[in-house]
Amino acid sequence: MNKTEITRQINRKKSFLCVGLDTDIDKIPAHLKIHPEGVFEFNKQIIDATKDFTVAYKINTAFYESQGVQGWVALEKTLDYIPDDIFKIADAKRGDIGNTAEHYAKTFFETYPFDAVTLNAYMGGDTIKPFLKYKNKWAILLALTSNAGAEDFETLKVGERKLYEEVLIKSSEWGSREQIMYVVGATRPEAISDIRKIVPNHFLLVPGVGAQGGDLQKICEYGLNKDGGLLINASRSIIYASSGENFAMEAGKEAEKLQKEMEGLLARVK
Amino acid sequence: MNKTEITRQINRKKSFLCVGLDTDIDKIPAHLKIHPEGVFEFNKQIIDATKDFTVAYKINTAFYESQGVQGWVALEKTLDYIPDDIFKIADAKRGDIGNTAEHYAKTFFETYPFDAVTLNAYMGGDTIKPFLKYKNKWAILLALTSNAGAEDFETLKVGERKLYEEVLIKSSEWGSREQIMYVVGATRPEAISDIRKIVPNHFLLVPGVGAQGGDLQKICEYGLNKDGGLLINASRSIIYASSGENFAMEAGKEAEKLQKEMEGLLARVK
Repeated sequence: MNKTEITRQINRKKSFLCVGLDTDIDKIPAHLKIHPEGVFEFNKQIIDATKDFTVAYKINTAFYESQGVQGWVALEKTLDYIPDDIFKIADAKRGDIGNTAEHYAKTFFETYPFDAVTLNAYMGGDTIKPFLKYKNKWAILLALTSNAGAEDFETLKVGERKLYEEVLIKSSEWGSREQIMYVVGATRPEAISDIRKIVPNHFLLVPGVGAQGGDLQKICEYGLNKDGGLLINASRSIIYASSGENFAMEAGKEAEKLQKEMEGLLARVK
Repeated sequence: MNKTEITRQINRKKSFLCVGLDTDIDKIPAHLKIHPEGVFEFNKQIIDATKDFTVAYKINTAFYESQGVQGWVALEKTLDYIPDDIFKIADAKRGDIGNTAEHYAKTFFETYPFDAVTLNAYMGGDTIKPFLKYKNKWAILLALTSNAGAEDFETLKVGERKLYEEVLIKSSEWGSREQIMYVVGATRPEAISDIRKIVPNHFLLVPGVGAQGGDLQKICEYGLNKDGGLLINASRSIIYASSGENFAMEAGKEAEKLQKEMEGLLARVK
């Protein structure tokens, strides 16, 4: 999916919401824990309930990998079930040397039909470039993350700049803004203003709204641009909005609430 | 597997070789490409031919993931086939926030019985700590890697130190040397001398000998310590030593050649 198609979808749905399918077999409602395909069935109902309000789904691979082969089967079925016009992100945070990176790119862009994969650029440009060979596919690089540990290395001073700013500057030369997005945690809205000075036109994937407490209004004030320029992810606050049999309906309500808020915020930048 | 057991194995086999099972379906001999379980059959024969010369196997998960579900089946069967007394490393380079990191730890330490997993610490300590809760399991953190891209960020100056040195210093406080190892590329033997000043007693996993051209003698001169302290990985130079039906025999010869060289190098530090 290319940038124009993402922006068109944002304008049509009046939303830049991404729903995170961090589906934990231990957290799904009791009646689905005993279902032979509980994780897929859960995702299917979540997708049905939220697809009108969201422009992207983010599949956190860890939750599927930890289930072994049946987890990958659930991932594949989930991916097939997501409507074609919705952006599909593998939140996998891979990163390895060229030879191995090619296999990771193959995994997410050929074996599985994701539009984008999150990547860790610590090992440098040659670990990212194999992903940029694919047309209309996206590498989403970790810049400044939402967790406390971001202070350990990401915000350290490298000369005049912070490490994550160095990542933004250097990596934005490896490919175009039609190929690269950045992960910026919602818990650091003030940093988004600085980040927009370095990458004014790139899309930012912003996790941390909802359970992690990020402030949607502030993020949008600094982060929205004429293309939209933001994909705001909420996972737990939507998919676990209720632990009962009404989980999908409640998830839909949470997604709609965020979509309505986003509609208002989008109207302000027009 | 704990540190004492690793050292005991090194002393018994007079080897600190790790064989990397980066098994690429496109590179295995023709007669195995048409085998219904070609990747596993290849690994099985490689393991039979090399197990007397190696103390560890490193499974590069990218090569299995790219094959989808059948890749994970091959990974599982390979892991079951590796003798119990040999150290099993998942070269997966994961790294994510606590909640997700717990699922990655579960993947490699519970769902699959690896002894160790390679991790990327860019996102900080809270992404590593969930792996340190497991007794006799190891987190192997990326420090200075063997690829050209290591110059992009890893070697940048953060104050007085380089970024990878900051990773070593900070992360060595998160757990003990019975829990943490470091990846240091074989293509930078001169750096191993500096690294040993920071982490004199930690095990180092050193990929890049063989196809990537690292110098074994120099690495050992700087890196060996009284416990061994090194796991030297060779992948392509062993597993693809021959592309014919004699691939396993040739792999065994390459592994034995490295083992003999290691035997001489170990004798020097005694």
